[in-house]
Amino acid sequence: MRGRFITVEGTEGVGKSTNIAFIQGLLSSAGIQHIVTREPGGTALAEEIRNVLVVPREEPMCELTELLLVFAARAQHLQALIEPNLAKGIWVLCDRFTDATFAYQGGGRGLSTAVIGQLQDLVQGGLRPDCTLLLDAPVDVGMARAGARGALDRFEQEKQAFFEKVRGAYLARVAQEPDRFVVVDASTDLQVVQDSIAKALSLQIDSHKAASDKVNLDGRHG
Amino acid sequence: MRGRFITVEGTEGVGKSTNIAFIQGLLSSAGIQHIVTREPGGTALAEEIRNVLVVPREEPMCELTELLLVFAARAQHLQALIEPNLAKGIWVLCDRFTDATFAYQGGGRGLSTAVIGQLQDLVQGGLRPDCTLLLDAPVDVGMARAGARGALDRFEQEKQAFFEKVRGAYLARVAQEPDRFVVVDASTDLQVVQDSIAKALSLQIDSHKAASDKVNLDGRHG
Repeated sequence: MRGRFITVEGTEGVGKSTNIAFIQGLLSSAGIQHIVTREPGGTALAEEIRNVLVVPREEPMCELTELLLVFAARAQHLQALIEPNLAKGIWVLCDRFTDATFAYQGGGRGLSTAVIGQLQDLVQGGLRPDCTLLLDAPVDVGMARAGARGALDRFEQEKQAFFEKVRGAYLARVAQEPDRFVVVDASTDLQVVQDSIAKALSLQIDSHKAASDKVNLDGRHG
Repeated sequence: MRGRFITVEGTEGVGKSTNIAFIQGLLSSAGIQHIVTREPGGTALAEEIRNVLVVPREEPMCELTELLLVFAARAQHLQALIEPNLAKGIWVLCDRFTDATFAYQGGGRGLSTAVIGQLQDLVQGGLRPDCTLLLDAPVDVGMARAGARGALDRFEQEKQAFFEKVRGAYLARVAQEPDRFVVVDASTDLQVVQDSIAKALSLQIDSHKAASDKVNLDGRHG
């Protein structure tokens, strides 16, 4: 049976890294084989493309270049890492995916969501995450946390108005596909955040185990 | 009046560099202000993307990644260099452009020409070259010349069958848009090649001058 594809989304400083480590722990405890990866990036070549995307440089990057680089890295990541693992039954936990493109390039930069949708279909075919955790917090909370980290990349250097649009676009994605998303209030106590995450993940883990048992049972009867 | 956009196409070793230098001389002699550039590349950022595309590496690049990187570099090149120059009336002479994408990624790799056409529309809007010189030669002639140059890039490392498909796709482009293309037999004597190029370019130069004179005359009367 295919692995599940879990993505974690959110603006800067909402605690993605901390909570991805927490989810890894949950999956390991449940005995679920998994990998952790990130976008843009995830393979040596896709990380090279990430580097072009995030490192600040003198020449301003045009918005369409940014969008096409994001999907170029994604095509590589999908073919070289994500798809082969899912096919082997290994779960893939990914720090950002295409919802981030709708949020940053669509909401933040104002690029057409129809165009992003076309590129999504071209690069992913029918593949979509099985479950997406959106860590949501007021923009100023996240920016203060991200700013404390030191040198800012090309996206982190954006202003508050940009991140407000990114956050709004994430919430619009949730409204369109409420069943896929679990929205967690990332501005509250970490214990409360992680209780919500654990609850959402346990649903995924239980339904996966039930489905696995059914496959095994059917196999035995067949 | 806008500058003209002249592209030079062909497989490896057909003499693009030599003949681009020759065309530069023709334009300079005619007093036409111009720049020379290349694809993929042409700006610092687009050259970074070129580097990701052409440098051989351990991880095989997936075909869709290659296609999206080509158009990412093109979007940057168009917005930062080609369009601003054409708008200022400066001619742009470009070593390869989107016909190369139809030839290499379409013909060579077998990617859908419909998808390439969609990306062309997305990135270029209505912009197409005013005139495209296709330097055409049997594949073995060009490969022998290119092979003599030393270290081969990721495309030059391809086999003869790949370049046969690339050449075929170039000729198919010519059949679709015969008015835009000037096909030059690059396997003959250089003098003959350059006579053909000079003839084609003089048509462009003369019609541009006639159009400029008309604009000036209309301006004087208005």
